[in-house]
Amino acid sequence: MRPALFLLLLVPGCLLASPDVSGRWTLTADIFHTPLHFPLQLSQDGGQLTGTLAGSPLTGALQGNSIRFVAKNEGGSTRETQGTVKDDVMTGTLVLRDPEDPKPPEAVPFTARRVPARRSGPPQRHEFKPTTFYRQFSAATPPVLSISPGDTVHTTTVDAGGEDEKGVPHVMGGNPQTGPFFVETAAPGDTLAVHITRLKLNRDWAVSDDAIVGRGLGSELAAAMKDAGKLVRWHLDIQRGVATPEKPAEHLTQYTVPLRPMLGCVAVAPNSVQAAPGTGDSGYYGGNMDFNEIVEGATVYLPVNVPGALLYVGDAHAVQGDGELNGNALETSMDVEFTVDVIPAKRIPGPRVESLTHIMTMGLAGSLDEAFRIATSSMTQWLMNDYKLTVSEAAQVLGTSAQYTVSEVADRNAGVVLKINKERLQPLASAAK
Amino acid sequence: MRPALFLLLLVPGCLLASPDVSGRWTLTADIFHTPLHFPLQLSQDGGQLTGTLAGSPLTGALQGNSIRFVAKNEGGSTRETQGTVKDDVMTGTLVLRDPEDPKPPEAVPFTARRVPARRSGPPQRHEFKPTTFYRQFSAATPPVLSISPGDTVHTTTVDAGGEDEKGVPHVMGGNPQTGPFFVETAAPGDTLAVHITRLKLNRDWAVSDDAIVGRGLGSELAAAMKDAGKLVRWHLDIQRGVATPEKPAEHLTQYTVPLRPMLGCVAVAPNSVQAAPGTGDSGYYGGNMDFNEIVEGATVYLPVNVPGALLYVGDAHAVQGDGELNGNALETSMDVEFTVDVIPAKRIPGPRVESLTHIMTMGLAGSLDEAFRIATSSMTQWLMNDYKLTVSEAAQVLGTSAQYTVSEVADRNAGVVLKINKERLQPLASAAK
Amino acid sequence: MRPALFLLLLVPGCLLASPDVSGRWTLTADIFHTPLHFPLQLSQDGGQLTGTLAGSPLTGALQGNSIRFVAKNEGGSTRETQGTVKDDVMTGTLVLRDPEDPKPPEAVPFTARRVPARRSGPPQRHEFKPTTFYRQFSAATPPVLSISPGDTVHTTTVDAGGEDEKGVPHVMGGNPQTGPFFVETAAPGDTLAVHITRLKLNRDWAVSDDAIVGRGLGSELAAAMKDAGKLVRWHLDIQRGVATPEKPAEHLTQYTVPLRPMLGCVAVAPNSVQAAPGTGDSGYYGGNMDFNEIVEGATVYLPVNVPGALLYVGDAHAVQGDGELNGNALETSMDVEFTVDVIPAKRIPGPRVESLTHIMTMGLAGSLDEAFRIATSSMTQWLMNDYKLTVSEAAQVLGTSAQYTVSEVADRNAGVVLKINKERLQPLASAAK
Amino acid sequence: MRPALFLLLLVPGCLLASPDVSGRWTLTADIFHTPLHFPLQLSQDGGQLTGTLAGSPLTGALQGNSIRFVAKNEGGSTRETQGTVKDDVMTGTLVLRDPEDPKPPEAVPFTARRVPARRSGPPQRHEFKPTTFYRQFSAATPPVLSISPGDTVHTTTVDAGGEDEKGVPHVMGGNPQTGPFFVETAAPGDTLAVHITRLKLNRDWAVSDDAIVGRGLGSELAAAMKDAGKLVRWHLDIQRGVATPEKPAEHLTQYTVPLRPMLGCVAVAPNSVQAAPGTGDSGYYGGNMDFNEIVEGATVYLPVNVPGALLYVGDAHAVQGDGELNGNALETSMDVEFTVDVIPAKRIPGPRVESLTHIMTMGLAGSLDEAFRIATSSMTQWLMNDYKLTVSEAAQVLGTSAQYTVSEVADRNAGVVLKINKERLQPLASAAK
Repeated sequence: MRPALFLLLLVPGCLLASPDVSGRWTLTADIFHTPLHFPLQLSQDGGQLTGTLAGSPLTGALQGNSIRFVAKNEGGSTRETQGTVKDDVMTGTLVLRDPEDPKPPEAVPFTARRVPARRSGPPQRHEFKPTTFYRQFSAATPPVLSISPGDTVHTTTVDAGGEDEKGVPHVMGGNPQTGPFFVETAAPGDTLAVHITRLKLNRDWAVSDDAIVGRGLGSELAAAMKDAGKLVRWHLDIQRGVATPEKPAEHLTQYTVPLRPMLGCVAVAPNSVQAAPGTGDSGYYGGNMDFNEIVEGATVYLPVNVPGALLYVGDAHAVQGDGELNGNALETSMDVEFTVDVIPAKRIPGPRVESLTHIMTMGLAGSLDEAFRIATSSMTQWLMNDYKLTVSEAAQVLGTSAQYTVSEVADRNAGVVLKINKERLQPLASAAK
Repeated sequence: MRPALFLLLLVPGCLLASPDVSGRWTLTADIFHTPLHFPLQLSQDGGQLTGTLAGSPLTGALQGNSIRFVAKNEGGSTRETQGTVKDDVMTGTLVLRDPEDPKPPEAVPFTARRVPARRSGPPQRHEFKPTTFYRQFSAATPPVLSISPGDTVHTTTVDAGGEDEKGVPHVMGGNPQTGPFFVETAAPGDTLAVHITRLKLNRDWAVSDDAIVGRGLGSELAAAMKDAGKLVRWHLDIQRGVATPEKPAEHLTQYTVPLRPMLGCVAVAPNSVQAAPGTGDSGYYGGNMDFNEIVEGATVYLPVNVPGALLYVGDAHAVQGDGELNGNALETSMDVEFTVDVIPAKRIPGPRVESLTHIMTMGLAGSLDEAFRIATSSMTQWLMNDYKLTVSEAAQVLGTSAQYTVSEVADRNAGVVLKINKERLQPLASAAK
Repeated sequence: MRPALFLLLLVPGCLLASPDVSGRWTLTADIFHTPLHFPLQLSQDGGQLTGTLAGSPLTGALQGNSIRFVAKNEGGSTRETQGTVKDDVMTGTLVLRDPEDPKPPEAVPFTARRVPARRSGPPQRHEFKPTTFYRQFSAATPPVLSISPGDTVHTTTVDAGGEDEKGVPHVMGGNPQTGPFFVETAAPGDTLAVHITRLKLNRDWAVSDDAIVGRGLGSELAAAMKDAGKLVRWHLDIQRGVATPEKPAEHLTQYTVPLRPMLGCVAVAPNSVQAAPGTGDSGYYGGNMDFNEIVEGATVYLPVNVPGALLYVGDAHAVQGDGELNGNALETSMDVEFTVDVIPAKRIPGPRVESLTHIMTMGLAGSLDEAFRIATSSMTQWLMNDYKLTVSEAAQVLGTSAQYTVSEVADRNAGVVLKINKERLQPLASAAK
Repeated sequence: MRPALFLLLLVPGCLLASPDVSGRWTLTADIFHTPLHFPLQLSQDGGQLTGTLAGSPLTGALQGNSIRFVAKNEGGSTRETQGTVKDDVMTGTLVLRDPEDPKPPEAVPFTARRVPARRSGPPQRHEFKPTTFYRQFSAATPPVLSISPGDTVHTTTVDAGGEDEKGVPHVMGGNPQTGPFFVETAAPGDTLAVHITRLKLNRDWAVSDDAIVGRGLGSELAAAMKDAGKLVRWHLDIQRGVATPEKPAEHLTQYTVPLRPMLGCVAVAPNSVQAAPGTGDSGYYGGNMDFNEIVEGATVYLPVNVPGALLYVGDAHAVQGDGELNGNALETSMDVEFTVDVIPAKRIPGPRVESLTHIMTMGLAGSLDEAFRIATSSMTQWLMNDYKLTVSEAAQVLGTSAQYTVSEVADRNAGVVLKINKERLQPLASAAK
């Protein structure tokens, strides 16, 4: 038995006034200076504790300031903690035991912090003028602003090449981001909702090119395209709401495209264990999704991985065809406004988007086939979790109502989106009540 | 020099009245009883012939009834014919020479027939009540009816399981087809246009199931779904225009789906050299495309591969979500009407669909990634050929206007469709003039 | 109750001498003239019958010549038969009931035939000189020869282009096949083993080309290769055991390749419901696998789908690199000898190959990713079924001993092969006893 | 004309003694503090400069210490520099002009440093005992040791979980790396050769598990495997050269696997513009390739992207089946020795491996299909560049000699390896001379 535990047991619990530890915490283990975050939910009944750690049920005890608990997952592994609580902060050691591992388990230090309540007062509107832009979706970047659920942020983004509304470059290209914004109360295990309330063009030109990316090129087209890739500038006629090539080629002199401003990137920081992805990448944390329905009025849902979520936005497009076939869309700077919300203790597997008319899941993977699988699984899960359908019922809804789009083929991950019209879901929601 | 040719040259051309061979022919080589069709286009200037054979330029001579010509393709291979012409039929031998092949080339017999002109008179409307249904898209099935360009056919299809509007089975299941219809004047190298003028439900039920096909199943969902696949019957309320499960599961009691009748299969016979595909398969010849925009009002374009095209229709669905995720859509019988047209001497690489609002290309392949490539290449070719765009211009249009859908994931081939709104193309069409 | 059944029950069983129906049968349902084969296994105890139909347990009764039984699968569907038995042939009607289907079920006629025992006598050696060659792996082609398990066939194959050992063409190209051979006792539900005992080159040249197929072409290489594809003839120096280009290009004057004769195609007829695949295709029935370890000494295992299996062989290659990258290997005619065996009542999911040193499973699918999945699943099943491993044990063996090869990328299906060295399996086989 | 240039031209060149700038340099542009490296090759003829910048031809002039040059790529874009040279360091500004871009181009500061010559003296052997381990393949990590071409390093690696030869953890898991080693003279545009001279096990156990990764799981196997994934410890019997499970499951009591120590990770830093990949990732820079032929005696070739290359090694496996199907191989610590070489001014597109018997290219991508494409293209390029084959000749060699392996399916990138036996290449090498 370890000395610390020995001492602990000697102290009569009744002599110490225990704090109330019930509620939501974020437990952060320190694995050789790499932080590892787990959602922790505690319920207290006298000195007895129940709850969950990273979704696994736990039991434990609180004696004065001394706390210990054990969480056991389905495979039989356990996470055991012991420590002390003071002022909404727990510190101690965490031991992971795998029943198959004959080695004595290692103890690592941890700190747990209570998930803060939303500060009181009405939602606020923040004006934020960015001066630095980031080229990674990193959990380690210090936040530029702290906001509360319900708050609105008004800011701007530079274009994918790092240039602002006046064409002034501020940073090397590659989708540099505005943010990160720290969302108070957002904790690992939650879902962040980003309501895009305004996307307003703030300059009258955009840049693109005339290549077609590899995923769209068959052998013959590849041969025909081998010299493609030159820069194409577009004029954005904000008054008329259309884009036209500045120097149109012979057959495009009359060609116009309706403007439909969108954000190529909306991201939270991924978990702190993995290397921070570059801002051309995407995944469960969102990122460079390049989905042309992330427009004004849409809501993007992302899983929170680190305390405060750390929200990034950037890579605005004046308009983009499905797939971002040229590798570039009509890249431009943007005037952006959004409102955030936190859905506590709800874990989603990857990006979801909601419009006035549809709910949508996005699969992001190294092939369209795999992205399709993920989008389908993710929507099935959504229907089962939120609409309480059985897997058979979900299959019947998908079979009759699925709408698929290829959102992105220009980056390392390809994207496939599965949409369901909300009209179809209305009667399910009623039935689910 | 071969004896036959020697003799031919001795005969003075002026002694014989030569027929006029100018125009379109279909040349059919007989390769050990396997027919091989080539489009042949001849222009006659005195005794001199020019034209194309299977797209390669040819030169030749006509002397009385004796004809000979040589076509040479880009790689240097030649096809040489010599024969006689009589009453719009040519017969003779064809020799294929490959400059890399040291072996003496073989001569095979051929027959060429003049592509008939459309018979005179106004378009007709045909009532056709099918009694036999086919389970292969075969070039060898004798046509059930011969129709002319402009003609309309009114007929019916049985459901995918072979049952008619009264639920009476007529044939083993697997998308049995009505047809094939022989379209006069349609010749290899042409394009067949099938205008779907009416799709009317003729019974009040459909069958489907509650599985999700493998392409939609990730590992977790596969485990959850392992017992799925039971039959689900749907009621088709034609009056209200909606489908509902006949015995809805608990949460689907209020679930309704708007009816949108479509044809799962529209096909021409593939080329006569390959094995006839089953009616669950798809390819450049169309087939079991299961694309939910092949509805009333749509036009399907398919490349003609054999004389008469041999058009098949079948596998009607009362409604289908994108992808046909259950493996079955709402399978039902149908009252079908369509009008055919032939676009002569225009070869398209695979299925195209046109609606009131969009032009669409379909990629059909063993993976979504490959299907995506094909759809993109095919649309690029369409824009370049019909709208006269350069490859750079086509890329700019696609980058700003592409809309992708996943049409089908339930069969051996997956399908991806690329659509372009016709409003975008209107100014291009003007510029192309 | 149906009249026929009513009458049947009135007849006292004791008055009729019942035949012994125990043993293996093949039941063939006639679905509107499409035959559908099921393995049927019966055990008789007095008038009571037990057994399996297509793997589902059945119970039934035999009274005189009248027989009836019901098989029920896991999903609750039943197959009910009633009929009469005479001279090892049963005839009657079969009714399929799906509990979810409100429609009255249809009855279809069936015939069941007892699987014959191997004829007595020692194995025979057959000389077979083919005169007709087939371009489909069809269940409908009449067999050219009937052979018994243990028998050996010595025959020849023409090359992929239809030419024989003298370069004489016999049939249109596209991998024309020798066969089909009817293997007595082989019944649906069995496995056919084809031991390749001799593959001997019978001419000194082969044809190939210098293209690379689409699956190997990235965008850059596609542009560089756009004019490739010319015929390349190879000299086969059987004495020295090497192949060399007949007219080598500048840098290939010294290039030689060791001969390693192989069969591109080994196939059984697929099930009789599907359209017969062309001889360029592949699948669970084998076919055009183009796997360069199907050499002398190898055994190919294929699932039997129709009575007699109907074995085809063809498409011999003098040597082939992995993947058959040129689309053609060194295509040549061949002197072929093989011995067949039947493994009764053992169903394998797809092609397996065994060499002196390895067991191998092959995945054949529309993408390498899917082929990889199938090969892996198929080997896991092999280890679980034949070596009695748990899924965890199978995973440990695969994780440490898997060897993967890409067998084929030139056809509609790509192939991935998973091999396990038999030395690794030796101790498992001992443990399994 | 810009003032600075104006002044420059006024200064008579003859008055200043110009340094000799001929030779290899690395030019580093500073794009808002992101360094961007380009290989620069200069030849000097009086005051005239020729050479290449990032492969594009350049012309320029040197007058005293003032230098300027312009490089123009095929698309017409130019890179113009002007600056001053002193002591093998150039500083100045670089301007990128795109003829399609109407905006005035921006000037960014640059520094160019002469690529150092190898220091004199015989190759050295370095003993390096690591104390810190890295979880990213980063260009920003300070090197732990500087070595010269020809030098040998003897060091150790911790296992994938961060544990050393005594089982002591030093770092969070995820393939932590030893290094990075700075290789003097290695410059962007070069190739680094890493000869693995010794891989010696230094403990008698390894950890793995019993799952199969998603890429190997079909629907059925996924259902069977849903509870898999438990830790499996293996005993490494270094004396006998075999691994056995420490607590073998019932049927694996006799199962043994020959030890074949390998390095899962060999990497150089990727280019400095992209986000540093985590040590589970792979790409053109090598990384977590998990290829079981990276064993003692193998040479790994990687493209140099930053000055000094920055070589990382780690993730040793006692043995691994193809694909690393369990997600883990037999993970262990290792005693590692390697020798480095630099091949100057030779750019390879991605990882190559050479063994005693084979040359190998590796494709790493999000799908096996894409990885296959890359491996094939990369080998074609190797044959064309180093063996001087035409594309037609390369195709003939590949068609007859290609050997493919699936190296890795456990990570974000899948790996396919294409090998060619060196015996086949011997005569080509002769012909190429």
